[in-house]
Amino acid sequence: MLHDPNRVHIFDTTLRDGEQVPGCQLSTPQKVEIAKSLELLGVDVIEAGFPVSSPGDFNSVIELSKAVNDPIICALTRANKNDIDVAADALRYAKRPRIHTGIGASDMHIKTKFNSTREEILERAVEAVKYAKKYVEDVEFYAEDAGRADIEYLAKMVEAVIAAGATVVNIPDTNGYCLPDQYGSKILFLKENVKNIDQAIISCHCHNDLGLATANSIAGLQNGARQVECTINGIGERAGNTSMEEVVMILKTHKTLGLHTNINTQGIYEISHQVRNLMNMPVQPNKAIVGANAFAHSSGIHQDGFLKNRENYEIIKPSDVGFPDATIVLTARSGRHALKHHLDRLGHHLDKDNLAIAYTAFLDLADSKQGINDDDLNQLVALHLATKLS
Amino acid sequence: MLHDPNRVHIFDTTLRDGEQVPGCQLSTPQKVEIAKSLELLGVDVIEAGFPVSSPGDFNSVIELSKAVNDPIICALTRANKNDIDVAADALRYAKRPRIHTGIGASDMHIKTKFNSTREEILERAVEAVKYAKKYVEDVEFYAEDAGRADIEYLAKMVEAVIAAGATVVNIPDTNGYCLPDQYGSKILFLKENVKNIDQAIISCHCHNDLGLATANSIAGLQNGARQVECTINGIGERAGNTSMEEVVMILKTHKTLGLHTNINTQGIYEISHQVRNLMNMPVQPNKAIVGANAFAHSSGIHQDGFLKNRENYEIIKPSDVGFPDATIVLTARSGRHALKHHLDRLGHHLDKDNLAIAYTAFLDLADSKQGINDDDLNQLVALHLATKLS
Repeated sequence: MLHDPNRVHIFDTTLRDGEQVPGCQLSTPQKVEIAKSLELLGVDVIEAGFPVSSPGDFNSVIELSKAVNDPIICALTRANKNDIDVAADALRYAKRPRIHTGIGASDMHIKTKFNSTREEILERAVEAVKYAKKYVEDVEFYAEDAGRADIEYLAKMVEAVIAAGATVVNIPDTNGYCLPDQYGSKILFLKENVKNIDQAIISCHCHNDLGLATANSIAGLQNGARQVECTINGIGERAGNTSMEEVVMILKTHKTLGLHTNINTQGIYEISHQVRNLMNMPVQPNKAIVGANAFAHSSGIHQDGFLKNRENYEIIKPSDVGFPDATIVLTARSGRHALKHHLDRLGHHLDKDNLAIAYTAFLDLADSKQGINDDDLNQLVALHLATKLS
Repeated sequence: MLHDPNRVHIFDTTLRDGEQVPGCQLSTPQKVEIAKSLELLGVDVIEAGFPVSSPGDFNSVIELSKAVNDPIICALTRANKNDIDVAADALRYAKRPRIHTGIGASDMHIKTKFNSTREEILERAVEAVKYAKKYVEDVEFYAEDAGRADIEYLAKMVEAVIAAGATVVNIPDTNGYCLPDQYGSKILFLKENVKNIDQAIISCHCHNDLGLATANSIAGLQNGARQVECTINGIGERAGNTSMEEVVMILKTHKTLGLHTNINTQGIYEISHQVRNLMNMPVQPNKAIVGANAFAHSSGIHQDGFLKNRENYEIIKPSDVGFPDATIVLTARSGRHALKHHLDRLGHHLDKDNLAIAYTAFLDLADSKQGINDDDLNQLVALHLATKLS
C-alpha cells in the first residue's frame, strides 16, 4: 500500500477526539479555520467528526469536506449500518473520504460493554468494514481497547478486517494503559503474525493517562506502524491523546529512526496557539515543544553552557517549530555569564570589578523578586554603579 | 546497598530543578511548606537547593534541613571545593544529609563548556566525590549530559566515582534527547559493565523536551536503576522534569514490573495543587494524573461504557490519587445513557419516549453551548416535557 516505507502518516484528531473534551467544543466555522491550518501544516488525514453523534458534528464533516483539498477527511462511526450511512452522507463532498469504523476488541469491552462474544464481535467488525467499503475505498478499522485485548484474538480480528477491505488498522490504547515496550510488542506481533498485514497501514492511537502516549506511539512506529493518530497540544479525553508536535519533532530530531513525515514543522507553534485560543484550553508553560518555557533557560549552570554553545542545552532550534527565539530569563539561580550577557545587551559593558558589584546587587534583588527584567537591570546599574561608570 | 532490590527511591527536585524556572521562585517559608508535604507524601530524598548559587538558596537548605526529619536532604554543587564547602555548611542541620556533585560527561560539554579533556574531567569528578565524602557519607554524583556521552567513557567515570565513594550515580538526560530504548540501554550497559555498580544506586534524571521524560525514567528502572529524580506536576527547566505522579502511578498500576515506592499516592492530588498555587504555575487540564480533566469522561461511546463498567475506561481509581470522583460532563458528543444518568440524578425519571424528546432537545442545546450543566438540564425538562410529566 505504501509507496515510501519510511513515511509516517499524521492523522490529526484534534477536531474529533480533541474537540469532544468538556469546554473544547467549537463551532463549524472555527473547525473549518483549524482544518485549513492543518492542511497548511501538511497533515495526511483530518478526522472531522462523528457524524451520527449530533447534527453539529454531521454539519462539520460536510463543511470540512468542502473546505479542505489535500488531506483525507475521515468520519468516525461505530460498527453499525446507521452510523456508516450517516458518515457516508456527511462525507459526500470530501475529495478523499475515509470512513473510520470499529468495535471493542478486549474481553472487558466485549463482555461488559457489548454483552457479546468474541465470535459475534469479529463478525460485526467484518460486516462493518464490508458495508463501509460500499461507500468509500478508504476504510480504517479501530480495534477499541486493543491495549488490553488478547493478542491472538486481536491478530485474528485485524486479519479478518484487512481481508474485508480495511486499508488502515488502528490499534488504540484506549485507556492509556500500555508501557512502551508492551505497545511496541503488540504492533510487532501483528506485523509478524497477520498474513495480510502488508496490505494495510498499522495506526497508533494512544492516550496519555500515564504520561506515555508519545513514547507508545514511537514504540509503535519502531515496530512497523506507519500512521500516528494525534492532536495539537495533546488535547483529548481525560489526560489527552498523543501530541502531534512531540511525535513529529522526535522523528525529525532522531534521524537514526529513518522515518519522516510531511509536516511543515515551522508551523507548529502557530497552530498550537490557534488551537489553544479557539478551544480556550490552556497549554502549561512546561509543555514539550509548544509550552511558553519550552526553550527558556534560567539556571546559572545551564545559562553559562548555553551561552558558550547553545547545542549544550538545545536539541531543537526554536525556529524549527516557529517558536520565538530561545530566551534567557534572569533569576536568583542565574550566573555571572548570564548577567553579563544581558547587561552587554543593554549597553552596560562592565569590567570584572564592576561586574562583581553588579552581581552581588543582582543576587540580593533576585532573592526578593521573581524574575529580573530589563528595567530592573537598568535600575540596578543606576543605583550601584552610576558613580563608577560615569 | 539496597535492602529491598525492588524498592524505587523517589528523589524530589521540585524545590531545586523545579524552583529555578522563571516565575516559580519561592520564599524559604513556602519551600518549607512544600518540603513538609513531600515528607508526608513519603519521598525518600528532597533536593533542597544549590547553596552556592545565591544566599536565598543557601538559607533554604538550612531551613529545610531543620524542618524535615525523615527524607534525606540533598544539596547540589558543581565539582569544585568551594561549592562543596558551601553545601556542607548549608546541610549542617540535616539529619540525613546528601551532597549531589557532578560534572559534564559528554564530549560536547567537556570541550565547549569546560574547554577540557576526558582525562582531566574524570580526575575532577573523582576529586569532587572524595572531597564531599569528607563532610558526608551519602554522596550522589551526576554525569551531566550522560544522554549524549560516549558510553564507554561514561562507564569509566561511573566506576571511578563509585570507587571514590559515591553512593548514588545519577545518569541525567540533561537535554531530554534520548528515546526510551536508548536511555534504557545506557542504564543496562552500566549495570552490566561497571564492576562495582552494585555498590551504588543508579538514578534516572530525565528532562521532557521531547515529551519522553516519564517513559525514559521507566525504561531506566526496567534496566536496573532504582532512583528517579522528578518533580511535582513535572515542572522544571524548559519542558520540565519527569513527573513524579506519572512514575509513581505507572509503578502502582503495572504490578508486573515488580517495583514499588514509598509514596502515599492518595496525597498526590493535594500536593499537586499546593505546588501549582504556591508557584503560580498552571497545570493543563489534560495533564496526566493531576490535570482537571484527567478522570473526566465526555464522549457518548465512552460514557456509555463507563456507566456500564467504569474499568472500561478507567485504569486508576481517582481516589487512589486523592482526586475528587470522576465526572461525566455532557456535551454534544454525549449519548442517551449519559443524559439519562444525569436526568435520573436530578430526579427526572423519564420513560423511553420522553427520553427521546429530551435527547433531541439536548442535542440542539449542546450544539450551541459548550458543556451542559444541571441548570441547563432542569430548564430543558421544564421547557420540553413539563406538560407531559406533570
